[in-house]
Amino acid sequence: MSAKAEIASRQTDFTTNADNYASTRNTSASLVKNISAEDACVQSMPDCSPAKWHLAHTTWFFETFLLENRPRYRVFDPEFRVLFNSYYNSVGEQYSRPHRGLLTRPSLTQVLDYRNYVDEHVRRLLDAGIDEASHRIVEVGIQHEQQHQELLLMDLKHLLAQNPLKPRYRDERPLLSESATTQTASWLTLSEGLIEIGAQGEAFCFDNERPRHRHYQPSFRLANRLVTNGEYLKFIEDGGYEQPTLWLSDGWATVSQNNWRAPLYWRKQEEMWSEFTLYGERPLNEHEPVVHLSFYEADAYARWAGARLPTEAEWEYAVTSQAADDDGGGQKLLDRSLHPQAMHSLPNAGITQAFSEVWQWTASAYLPYPGYAPPPGAIGEYNGKFMSNQMVLRGACCVTPPGHSRATYRNFFYPHCRWQFAGLRLAC
Amino acid sequence: MSAKAEIASRQTDFTTNADNYASTRNTSASLVKNISAEDACVQSMPDCSPAKWHLAHTTWFFETFLLENRPRYRVFDPEFRVLFNSYYNSVGEQYSRPHRGLLTRPSLTQVLDYRNYVDEHVRRLLDAGIDEASHRIVEVGIQHEQQHQELLLMDLKHLLAQNPLKPRYRDERPLLSESATTQTASWLTLSEGLIEIGAQGEAFCFDNERPRHRHYQPSFRLANRLVTNGEYLKFIEDGGYEQPTLWLSDGWATVSQNNWRAPLYWRKQEEMWSEFTLYGERPLNEHEPVVHLSFYEADAYARWAGARLPTEAEWEYAVTSQAADDDGGGQKLLDRSLHPQAMHSLPNAGITQAFSEVWQWTASAYLPYPGYAPPPGAIGEYNGKFMSNQMVLRGACCVTPPGHSRATYRNFFYPHCRWQFAGLRLAC
Amino acid sequence: MSAKAEIASRQTDFTTNADNYASTRNTSASLVKNISAEDACVQSMPDCSPAKWHLAHTTWFFETFLLENRPRYRVFDPEFRVLFNSYYNSVGEQYSRPHRGLLTRPSLTQVLDYRNYVDEHVRRLLDAGIDEASHRIVEVGIQHEQQHQELLLMDLKHLLAQNPLKPRYRDERPLLSESATTQTASWLTLSEGLIEIGAQGEAFCFDNERPRHRHYQPSFRLANRLVTNGEYLKFIEDGGYEQPTLWLSDGWATVSQNNWRAPLYWRKQEEMWSEFTLYGERPLNEHEPVVHLSFYEADAYARWAGARLPTEAEWEYAVTSQAADDDGGGQKLLDRSLHPQAMHSLPNAGITQAFSEVWQWTASAYLPYPGYAPPPGAIGEYNGKFMSNQMVLRGACCVTPPGHSRATYRNFFYPHCRWQFAGLRLAC
Amino acid sequence: MSAKAEIASRQTDFTTNADNYASTRNTSASLVKNISAEDACVQSMPDCSPAKWHLAHTTWFFETFLLENRPRYRVFDPEFRVLFNSYYNSVGEQYSRPHRGLLTRPSLTQVLDYRNYVDEHVRRLLDAGIDEASHRIVEVGIQHEQQHQELLLMDLKHLLAQNPLKPRYRDERPLLSESATTQTASWLTLSEGLIEIGAQGEAFCFDNERPRHRHYQPSFRLANRLVTNGEYLKFIEDGGYEQPTLWLSDGWATVSQNNWRAPLYWRKQEEMWSEFTLYGERPLNEHEPVVHLSFYEADAYARWAGARLPTEAEWEYAVTSQAADDDGGGQKLLDRSLHPQAMHSLPNAGITQAFSEVWQWTASAYLPYPGYAPPPGAIGEYNGKFMSNQMVLRGACCVTPPGHSRATYRNFFYPHCRWQFAGLRLAC
Repeated sequence: MSAKAEIASRQTDFTTNADNYASTRNTSASLVKNISAEDACVQSMPDCSPAKWHLAHTTWFFETFLLENRPRYRVFDPEFRVLFNSYYNSVGEQYSRPHRGLLTRPSLTQVLDYRNYVDEHVRRLLDAGIDEASHRIVEVGIQHEQQHQELLLMDLKHLLAQNPLKPRYRDERPLLSESATTQTASWLTLSEGLIEIGAQGEAFCFDNERPRHRHYQPSFRLANRLVTNGEYLKFIEDGGYEQPTLWLSDGWATVSQNNWRAPLYWRKQEEMWSEFTLYGERPLNEHEPVVHLSFYEADAYARWAGARLPTEAEWEYAVTSQAADDDGGGQKLLDRSLHPQAMHSLPNAGITQAFSEVWQWTASAYLPYPGYAPPPGAIGEYNGKFMSNQMVLRGACCVTPPGHSRATYRNFFYPHCRWQFAGLRLAC
Repeated sequence: MSAKAEIASRQTDFTTNADNYASTRNTSASLVKNISAEDACVQSMPDCSPAKWHLAHTTWFFETFLLENRPRYRVFDPEFRVLFNSYYNSVGEQYSRPHRGLLTRPSLTQVLDYRNYVDEHVRRLLDAGIDEASHRIVEVGIQHEQQHQELLLMDLKHLLAQNPLKPRYRDERPLLSESATTQTASWLTLSEGLIEIGAQGEAFCFDNERPRHRHYQPSFRLANRLVTNGEYLKFIEDGGYEQPTLWLSDGWATVSQNNWRAPLYWRKQEEMWSEFTLYGERPLNEHEPVVHLSFYEADAYARWAGARLPTEAEWEYAVTSQAADDDGGGQKLLDRSLHPQAMHSLPNAGITQAFSEVWQWTASAYLPYPGYAPPPGAIGEYNGKFMSNQMVLRGACCVTPPGHSRATYRNFFYPHCRWQFAGLRLAC
Repeated sequence: MSAKAEIASRQTDFTTNADNYASTRNTSASLVKNISAEDACVQSMPDCSPAKWHLAHTTWFFETFLLENRPRYRVFDPEFRVLFNSYYNSVGEQYSRPHRGLLTRPSLTQVLDYRNYVDEHVRRLLDAGIDEASHRIVEVGIQHEQQHQELLLMDLKHLLAQNPLKPRYRDERPLLSESATTQTASWLTLSEGLIEIGAQGEAFCFDNERPRHRHYQPSFRLANRLVTNGEYLKFIEDGGYEQPTLWLSDGWATVSQNNWRAPLYWRKQEEMWSEFTLYGERPLNEHEPVVHLSFYEADAYARWAGARLPTEAEWEYAVTSQAADDDGGGQKLLDRSLHPQAMHSLPNAGITQAFSEVWQWTASAYLPYPGYAPPPGAIGEYNGKFMSNQMVLRGACCVTPPGHSRATYRNFFYPHCRWQFAGLRLAC
Repeated sequence: MSAKAEIASRQTDFTTNADNYASTRNTSASLVKNISAEDACVQSMPDCSPAKWHLAHTTWFFETFLLENRPRYRVFDPEFRVLFNSYYNSVGEQYSRPHRGLLTRPSLTQVLDYRNYVDEHVRRLLDAGIDEASHRIVEVGIQHEQQHQELLLMDLKHLLAQNPLKPRYRDERPLLSESATTQTASWLTLSEGLIEIGAQGEAFCFDNERPRHRHYQPSFRLANRLVTNGEYLKFIEDGGYEQPTLWLSDGWATVSQNNWRAPLYWRKQEEMWSEFTLYGERPLNEHEPVVHLSFYEADAYARWAGARLPTEAEWEYAVTSQAADDDGGGQKLLDRSLHPQAMHSLPNAGITQAFSEVWQWTASAYLPYPGYAPPPGAIGEYNGKFMSNQMVLRGACCVTPPGHSRATYRNFFYPHCRWQFAGLRLAC
């Protein structure tokens, strides 16, 4: 199957059923198998949540939206309704987000019991058969849990990185990209036109991907690969972090206040750069895509390079029409590299590294599409209320669960955030 | 001349010459005539600047960009280069913005001397004749000073409002809107199409208004007038400030943190609402356009009203094609009301109150137009570097200097800001 | 043995030897037996440290000051030198205090291994016999560990109290004070004189208790018992927290900023007061000594009651000369109540509740005694450098380890702190 | 008259009458004669107040405590009751202290009118004759105004120092200390004994100086002069600001957070030290007493020098019994140097520079004397409520008004404060 076909089909081949439910739930639990209860409990900054909290909250989602109101269902623990509500004001009060790390109780064991309890009830429900509305909730719940799988790994990486012992999350698997080289990027040219972007059809997507709508697109060029560590190092060595005129005003203020001098997790010791990864701290590999950049850094790099970031429409249009046959989104999350990998060779044509390595900052603010309307009820709080102050990232990354990525997907973060796996691709 | 023609002509009838220079400079000086040196010196929050600083900085602009490098010109005071540089990193270091209010020296008198000194040199230069590039700088300098005239009044209003004595900036003129009534708003419908927005031609505009470009616009409806105080009061009385589901997430956080319960400058005492204006504190007039809203409040109001904010393209397209004949942008700033006024009657057709009363929040983030490039040199820092985290406002307001407004004008503020004269117009 | 004799002998009967070392170390480990690794890892505020950190730091103390420089001793982990150094600049760099809770590694298990490793080496050393200087270090190390046993329980209580589940640290033992009553306090009168306070002799004491020195003491009166919850409730009900004139200026600012309305851990629900304890949340017992007050609250209460706090000299002088026979400091920490207990009857004469229930705020700032000199070397950082901005507390409390209290002991906290077991006794 | 006699008589020769009132009030007004209304309006940090506010508040004091309740007296402006109340909760609400600088109205001219209005009424009252209680209030009001004269100059110095133009407050008078040299300090030895400190008799003193009480004083030694800039420079050059073991723990935290490297107002440019004074910025004079130190710096210097700070009892006892004949507290404030001066020669015996140059930090916390009770009523808030967290300074300084200093005077500041004229004298 060609990459283009594969991307198109992503929107349809993922059917919500007991198998998908079970495998997604198992994947989440497996992510904490090799860490301690301590690792799963602590919160390293207000933006992050403890792994245990992710496990509980995704369970709370199914309990609250699927099970709670069924006759004869008895909630596992009534206090969890507040403790593990993230931000659903329609559901009720929430436990303070920056204090999630103080919840040493319930223990990890109790949270895993909670998962089993809810899983058992969902399983019975799915066995008995559910209506269309419930089916939709299971589907959203699975996608929601996949998002939290990625968040769990991001947040855990941030926690481990604070520890001077530089502990590894996983050490079984060597990184394969040592022998790679950096090949010159080339520009793909796309001509102007009245295009359509956004999701359509029956396949699952989030509300923020709809409605599919017309957009007038001038001609533009997009790089066929991501920016690498080696390229970003040149920006640093050229004084990129010391020249205010390369930066947006808010970006420069952020750089100055935080004394940023390199991407998050980079460290220079005795003239050598190293990078903290989920495999521990390693020497920086210049061929790998640069990762853990804020929007401000991505934007400043692009300006320094005489280019710019693509808009989300440009990205979606190019990837939908020009993707190369390289994208290995098919492996199971646990088999995949938990760090972006270098390429061994570039295909002759097409966009590469669209979904497999790092999220790609765009020049687009996260705003509603024309005609966007959030769904009614609590689920309406899922996406719409975050549509201010954030920037869109497109693609997916090395820790995005398989089956979770698609060309219309809109990820979003504040422009100063950089603990997510974010890098960039140039446009001009 | 019809309003449509008038708007179009705004872009051409403002020629840069000695008269414009002189009248703009005189207007600035006249704004501080009835206030004390103390009023002109103090800074009431980091976002604001002292009136004295505005007077000095606009002068610094002409000195730095027009005079400084001319042979035989001697700078008024070399220390002013740092003291009155706002944010031009290309020019050099800047005195700390939040500390501008500590500059009791130079005195207001010395700053007025500085103005006279620079004015005298500019006058001689203009008399002698200047080249096209210098002409452009004079033009930008005049527009820049007009922006600061508006800022000076906004900032001064904020300062006076902090004072429990509720001092008046001006008391000569009664507000004329007492007898007005609120007429039902009606929707103008605009049909879909591939439109163009942005500035073109030779008339002055800021770089951020260019390039004019194509945009696909679905059909939409826009209200023919602004939202009034009376309408906004209904939102408050309906618990608008207590229902999180009406708000963007960041908006709700802002409301909660700051304990907002009404627009800035509103105060409720013994069940009566009053509003602080440049004419002192007065009972709230329900027929006047609501003003001093943040983006979050404008957005929440629109959601509560079952509508939304227009995009900037919608606003520009509608105003360019459908403006009614009402807009009195022609009076001199000092003759105009320094507070938005109620309407006495609505015309049968067309958009009213586009430029005369309050800036109108749009749903558009402040981002570069496709193909935007900042001009080279220090002037390139004027607009481009602020293109993140802010929202666009369109139109103009009661304290915008005459001749300064046009349909392509893009004003911008952070979504939490509300000390500017900002209100809203609904779309759907 | 009379209470007076017992207090005097406290300073001599505690000999440093292998038994004391072993029992102190065992007590520490036993304190975390019934909590999870999660409970032992998390830090609930910058002032607190995780239980795990206490266990490691006390071990680090013995390793650093006793073992590190011995031939053939190999440090357990060189990184621990920084990780578990609290504040000894002479020893070197320290891991950031407010981030102690981020150390999910080393795990609790590894920290217990560290303890065993160091214990084994200390045991061998003690068996082989040590010189006087090393003997002194062991003695200090034991006292140091006892201080951290109390801190560990205070900090853990604070952590558990943040959890809406209100988890219990221990539930085995009922509180015995249910049948108690509050008997009227009486004043003991002490006459003026040139007295001596401070420690002397060979028994262990901290450097800040020395030198014993003369002090002119005017006559004064001291209450024979502590202030109770019931008495403190009257202060609250009389508007104590709303009258600024009852408070020190800094105290009133603290009350206002933090919106304090009752002691820490008190909660009012439906007109009933409850209190969080290490046995979980319970209805407030009016006969128990009030606990978890800041200095400001103790001071304001005393002013409201027409009295004042005693100075540390007054406290020491009165307790040394007038203690009643009630003080059960002899039980093992694990057998004792982990919450202050009400009295069943008051003895006819003498000071009661001096050491058994709560630390007692004094009116004395924590300053060096005349002639005080810190010991040379890193141990010199133990006490002296904290002699500013803090107030002295005297006595001991229900979670102070047996054998750790004495009449000359000087405890100290910032005046706003109230997570320690602090209450008050009146003077006038 | 010998210095000793002079100091003793200070407590009696200052009679409260119309002359004292008039001359004190005139002195205040004269302090703002050579500054602009802008200089008098701005507040450079929350600890400081604008000069205009000092002028108004001292007037408010007389109006509130002396005039307000008299029949037929009409308050100048009822809003001033809140605006110019500093911290008297018994009087009522207060305008927010950190926002005093926002009060551009009333203008300086109006405040001077307010002063004249109140002065006229006080004058009539004094002419008509007043009772003993009112007499006491006038006396306190004069002393209070003298305190604010010193504060006004401290605060103004701080404001001017923030300005890159380094403006001068006064330039008429050269500093006379250029030819001075530093003579070796010598120690005065005082033997132990049961002494008395504190004020007694009828002469004016603040409540915090009473009651006179017994104190047992061990023998000690006190330096006969102040520490100089040259001596303090050696501390800096020896790495004093980089060695944590020289500092109290809170002091080291303060130094680190604020990146202190020298006293306030010192600046090093091209290897030369200069110091900002009320006469502008000047090269540092090594013979002058060091000034603008925090308690932490004074304490660290003393530790570095192998000495310590004296207690307030030591200072008072030594100055009362051993003062040399040098102290020129007699000139009018406006004739005196507004900066500490170097000495030309040291007398053979006795304490010099006790009152004339800089306040001297002591090792004593600011606490009530045994038996202290604040006076009843609002005046009771004058001193007592500040008795926590602050340290006592003794003596007086170059900007203390003549007639305001005495050996029992207790000044107090937080240990981190250094904008007051504070230096040190060693003890051991």
